[in-house]
Amino acid sequence: MNKIKHFSQVNDFTKEDFDEVFRRAKIFDVKGKDFTHVAPGKVLGLGFFQESTRTASGLQSAIIRLGGGWNGIPSPAGSYVNIGEESMDDTLNSLSDSADILGIRHKNFDLATYSKKATVPLINGMCGGDEHSAGALGMAYTIAKKMGKMDNLKVGMYGMVKSSRPSKAITRLLAKYGATFYVDPVIPEFNTPDYIKKEAEASGAKFITAPVKDFIGEVDYFSVIEGLPQAGEDPKHLEAYNKDFQIMGKKDFALLGKQSSFSYGMPGAMTDGRMIVNMTEADADSRCITHAMLKDWTAVMMALITYLLDIKVK
Amino acid sequence: MNKIKHFSQVNDFTKEDFDEVFRRAKIFDVKGKDFTHVAPGKVLGLGFFQESTRTASGLQSAIIRLGGGWNGIPSPAGSYVNIGEESMDDTLNSLSDSADILGIRHKNFDLATYSKKATVPLINGMCGGDEHSAGALGMAYTIAKKMGKMDNLKVGMYGMVKSSRPSKAITRLLAKYGATFYVDPVIPEFNTPDYIKKEAEASGAKFITAPVKDFIGEVDYFSVIEGLPQAGEDPKHLEAYNKDFQIMGKKDFALLGKQSSFSYGMPGAMTDGRMIVNMTEADADSRCITHAMLKDWTAVMMALITYLLDIKVK
Amino acid sequence: MNKIKHFSQVNDFTKEDFDEVFRRAKIFDVKGKDFTHVAPGKVLGLGFFQESTRTASGLQSAIIRLGGGWNGIPSPAGSYVNIGEESMDDTLNSLSDSADILGIRHKNFDLATYSKKATVPLINGMCGGDEHSAGALGMAYTIAKKMGKMDNLKVGMYGMVKSSRPSKAITRLLAKYGATFYVDPVIPEFNTPDYIKKEAEASGAKFITAPVKDFIGEVDYFSVIEGLPQAGEDPKHLEAYNKDFQIMGKKDFALLGKQSSFSYGMPGAMTDGRMIVNMTEADADSRCITHAMLKDWTAVMMALITYLLDIKVK
Repeated sequence: MNKIKHFSQVNDFTKEDFDEVFRRAKIFDVKGKDFTHVAPGKVLGLGFFQESTRTASGLQSAIIRLGGGWNGIPSPAGSYVNIGEESMDDTLNSLSDSADILGIRHKNFDLATYSKKATVPLINGMCGGDEHSAGALGMAYTIAKKMGKMDNLKVGMYGMVKSSRPSKAITRLLAKYGATFYVDPVIPEFNTPDYIKKEAEASGAKFITAPVKDFIGEVDYFSVIEGLPQAGEDPKHLEAYNKDFQIMGKKDFALLGKQSSFSYGMPGAMTDGRMIVNMTEADADSRCITHAMLKDWTAVMMALITYLLDIKVK
Repeated sequence: MNKIKHFSQVNDFTKEDFDEVFRRAKIFDVKGKDFTHVAPGKVLGLGFFQESTRTASGLQSAIIRLGGGWNGIPSPAGSYVNIGEESMDDTLNSLSDSADILGIRHKNFDLATYSKKATVPLINGMCGGDEHSAGALGMAYTIAKKMGKMDNLKVGMYGMVKSSRPSKAITRLLAKYGATFYVDPVIPEFNTPDYIKKEAEASGAKFITAPVKDFIGEVDYFSVIEGLPQAGEDPKHLEAYNKDFQIMGKKDFALLGKQSSFSYGMPGAMTDGRMIVNMTEADADSRCITHAMLKDWTAVMMALITYLLDIKVK
Repeated sequence: MNKIKHFSQVNDFTKEDFDEVFRRAKIFDVKGKDFTHVAPGKVLGLGFFQESTRTASGLQSAIIRLGGGWNGIPSPAGSYVNIGEESMDDTLNSLSDSADILGIRHKNFDLATYSKKATVPLINGMCGGDEHSAGALGMAYTIAKKMGKMDNLKVGMYGMVKSSRPSKAITRLLAKYGATFYVDPVIPEFNTPDYIKKEAEASGAKFITAPVKDFIGEVDYFSVIEGLPQAGEDPKHLEAYNKDFQIMGKKDFALLGKQSSFSYGMPGAMTDGRMIVNMTEADADSRCITHAMLKDWTAVMMALITYLLDIKVK
């Protein structure tokens, strides 16, 4: 038997793994084509212990389009974990007994450690403190599709990188392709964590901290990071952050290069009730790839699921 | 690309649209036949932000029987909307990115307005203040099946039309086929709203307000309306309503014509804890089509989904 | 039309029914084989009004692997029953209108009585005070698979039989195959209820109450019963039970016969926060069949569903 492949974190995959997943994603990225012969009767188990609009739905669509279905716990209400009668380990062990592959969301569960004893492949759908690995995979696919390349991208980020699991994951992923990151974290405390920087630099990535206006005109891809922090952030930092955070709109996007693209995190709400971008202005801009990412994401998850399940795709 | 078809409200459809959906429903209304080749891998996204027993289940069955599956938010617990972190617009926009078609329930969201910018077809599964459009579609199908015709029906209604979204929707729908409505709203405040009457009369419908005993013997189809009002009804009206509402039973149904049919709304509970009908007596009557409607409803939803998705059905 | 078959309780089935289901389970118990041609488009309706990790997931997997899908209410949050607006009878009647078969969990609903008027086959997924019938079916299958026989098994039980619905159901089931039960209920109040004993003895079963150390070396199969009681147990009994209950571990399993097998109930938590077994030690023992049962269970449910739906399986 082959070793079980996991995507419990970005670093489970080599660049070759990513290349193969992106190759498959292109095959599945065809609207309306029938792929139900690819994984008939296969079951994706969900263990989602935080709310989800996009990730759970995209994973569900992926397995349905492949000819299978999903089971398990798609939302935090109504489970034994939720009422405190069962541990994450026991729950995932049990879900593994009836599913072929699991997708998991939890605020702090360490999925990489759990993966060592897991009996089916795992997908990190924003699990643990550091990563929305599956989200980052989709973001990278759409960025590369729009830019025509994955290598040596100039990536701008505005917002709380430190407290954004998608942003930390995309940093790790694009670092493997030699990206340079221009980061305006609004307040220094929300900059990319040092341990992620060091790890990414070892892969050839570079980091530049600067005000957004200094780099927005230079980057290939610009990310406005979601404004709801991970649980446990210091309220004083959030107050300072909200005070200085400028909502991004038309006048900011005007500074972006014509061939560049950008996206905003979702949910787009901030803790002070504002939205991180003027969504109407953002969505009206043809360079905005937020919904393109979400639309592509099902195909990327079809690619990931088939790859982890060792299903051949030509 | 064709314009996206929606069923965000009864008035999205012309009589020709309804005729075509009912034609398809007859094809799908065959117990046990395999239709999984019709829509393999297609995904119905649910955005149900109020409880549902029948509507969500029927929509889910419809897409499964067509060879696809469902994703999204099937019940109000455990979503970002539920915890106040995301708007309906953003949620539906995002669900649209991974689904082929959406079914939606919400107490006051204006689906017709949203449909103008929607990127996939929408089904109103009791959304907004006025309509359970998909419910009405199924009711009309079964009524016509039992009566052998859809045109010029005499329809009796007993109960809070004003506060019943299925009743307001069926009024609009059958008005297109020239129905005459005999309404006993128990108290005047719960009569069919004037704006719906005017609109329906413009389609050729007629309205007569009278005590139920005066018309129950005359109608082709008689509806006992559910007793739980929409959110926000005046408690004084409800008190007066409950005081005068008579539970319908065997002795009332005895007054109905032999060729007539009737149904009762579900859930059948009233705000004072009573049930709107004696269910045992109602279900024992061969003219009661409540469960026939529910049984037919999956086929009607298969018809609606395929029609909205432009899938040919012969 | 054939009479509708139900599995609302163990006693709905004769030994011949069980034999046929186990025959089918062997056919489906093949990892990775495609069975989606068996029940394409069939719908399993869930009515789960208590939490579930394993039962709901296994039922969902079973219908997906057979080519169908599931709908309904998979967890207690967000349903009309949950908010008190609809009865179990009305809910199940309505779910029956869109599904081909129902799986049900409820703390005290009498499913056997309801089955007399049910319009689709019912599966008891831990419903009512006495039984987790579907759970017991799977346990019996795996025990027989490991022991090479179903007849005349020596079964040891340690824990609160009286308050364990899986244990009461497996007692009834294995009694039909002439089992002898060695029971250590920790406190006398938690012994197998007399009415179940009498019924089982009428089928040829025997019961011996003794301390676990006296029989653990003698039995073919040993069950450590879950430690969370059914709702309504006397707190004084629980206190006495917790005081005397010994967590089972390596040193206890060492006393088991080499050809014997054992399992522990899940969730494994007790009301005092302890776990009923040392799970690491239990899972490391090759005779522990807890997860083997769960892995086999999907195949057993595929067998049960096809049998209840009168689908031929060769």
